[in-house]
Amino acid sequence: MKGVAAALIGIDWGTTSARAYRLDGEGSVQDTREAPLGVQQVRGDFAQAFATLLGDWLHEPVPRIACGMIGSRQGWLEVPYIECPAPLDAFARGLVRTPGGALAIVPGLAGRDDDGTPDVMRGEETQIIGAVGPDAPWSLAVLPGTHSKWAIVRSGAIQTFATYMTGEVYAVLREHSILGRMAEGSGRVFADAAFRRGVQRALTKTSSADTLLHRLFGARTLALRADLAAEDTGDYLSGLLIGSEVAAGRDWATWHGARDATVLLLGSRALCARYAAALHEAGIATVSGPEHAAARGLWRIAKAAQLVP
Amino acid sequence: MKGVAAALIGIDWGTTSARAYRLDGEGSVQDTREAPLGVQQVRGDFAQAFATLLGDWLHEPVPRIACGMIGSRQGWLEVPYIECPAPLDAFARGLVRTPGGALAIVPGLAGRDDDGTPDVMRGEETQIIGAVGPDAPWSLAVLPGTHSKWAIVRSGAIQTFATYMTGEVYAVLREHSILGRMAEGSGRVFADAAFRRGVQRALTKTSSADTLLHRLFGARTLALRADLAAEDTGDYLSGLLIGSEVAAGRDWATWHGARDATVLLLGSRALCARYAAALHEAGIATVSGPEHAAARGLWRIAKAAQLVP
Repeated sequence: MKGVAAALIGIDWGTTSARAYRLDGEGSVQDTREAPLGVQQVRGDFAQAFATLLGDWLHEPVPRIACGMIGSRQGWLEVPYIECPAPLDAFARGLVRTPGGALAIVPGLAGRDDDGTPDVMRGEETQIIGAVGPDAPWSLAVLPGTHSKWAIVRSGAIQTFATYMTGEVYAVLREHSILGRMAEGSGRVFADAAFRRGVQRALTKTSSADTLLHRLFGARTLALRADLAAEDTGDYLSGLLIGSEVAAGRDWATWHGARDATVLLLGSRALCARYAAALHEAGIATVSGPEHAAARGLWRIAKAAQLVP
Repeated sequence: MKGVAAALIGIDWGTTSARAYRLDGEGSVQDTREAPLGVQQVRGDFAQAFATLLGDWLHEPVPRIACGMIGSRQGWLEVPYIECPAPLDAFARGLVRTPGGALAIVPGLAGRDDDGTPDVMRGEETQIIGAVGPDAPWSLAVLPGTHSKWAIVRSGAIQTFATYMTGEVYAVLREHSILGRMAEGSGRVFADAAFRRGVQRALTKTSSADTLLHRLFGARTLALRADLAAEDTGDYLSGLLIGSEVAAGRDWATWHGARDATVLLLGSRALCARYAAALHEAGIATVSGPEHAAARGLWRIAKAAQLVP
């Protein structure tokens, strides 16, 4: 345990892993602990997993707060979604405590497409709150991942967002489709040119055959016809998918008045680098979010809920 | 063996299975034999698989002709692609015999998108030739499947075509993604309303979030928010994917001058029924192709090559 007294324990508790942060009275991260105790792994005994993750931090007399899939139907307890547009206060008011009160859980966020189809996030809302200060007039945040999120923050509230299944589609195609079988052995070195070629194809609106279902097949035919090295098809596919997301997200952001906005990228360094490259190909500038965005968001929500002074 | 003398043995030899047809002097199918001896299963000893498939037909002194993946790099021998536009004669001229001459193999067909990206088919060209008579002035053929094909036939030649990975993307998402896990237990009864809802969503061009990567997530969120029964998500996903293909294929066909064309559907009855429903939702009329389209195509190519009188 560090010398500085803790003021809050925050947990970013997702599907595959959980990460705990020990924060001081200024909201600065003093220490972190991570464990493969995601909601999918734990399946039931969350109190035990909570104790395992925190270890000796469990005995510190400070409030604890968590965000992410821990608040889903498969989590410790289901916390109702907040609806867009959602200001910081709404998340603070929506906190729900586990039985016994050991942990306060941040609600997820729900929105709707133009046609009424629902969209949801759990965990990313907290990262966005952590990365976008309450005084920021405006922001377009992109959180790459299994289910990438694009979100517009305005006047201190998350106004609207859209999810893209880019990471999951990439994973299942790489692992289980004919494209993956062709790409065997690829990915050891990042094939930058192939990645950019995929991005470019996705960004180009031709008059015909202008869809992902068709373009995916190009990853196969280019290799088959010796126009792309087989070991580069994985990164070409990655570029095609991320490029498709960027093309769609750009249209979506423009529709919501965010044309020519700089994108705030939040997520793992390697994945954000790919997104930055794809966004730059699309003529969109990017800026990296702060470290420990989730911890910062948990701190802000805890402050708004007066869990910490 | 049937009483009528055989004039030709034709084989539709694909990735997972092989189907042999015994044709009489009029080109009518007298008998068929099928075996799970696809190119992926055989892996090498094709002469043995050929003998197993044909059985006592092997001793009939008639020409044999095959189409499909048997002519691919992974097949018995690689037969170079014909390039679009491809008349019947080009396939006849492009026939290649296996060593020893036991079997003549039909070449596959290659085309290019507007941006130069190659596209390929092996086997479908023969079905199209069998279904579209040489005198037909015009046709838009759709062959649903793992890798669906849309093809335009004009003046007796396959002018151009486009592949959509609809079937394979459906399969990997159903078997390996979060959407499949939600849809567990579905598919026993066809959820027609959910299928049509997916199709409608895919056909609707909204001003934002108008892409498959985003819409796929709707299969999850609709169920999560109790707006779709979990057991119906499989058919909703099917509708979303087939609808996306139809929306793209319609644009593609329009671009190639085939607006308002009636679609000739070639393939399995169950899958063609889904495509017919989706095409009708898009305002496109359909007509079913003839039975044994591959056998008819093999007969026509054999005639053009003077393998049969």
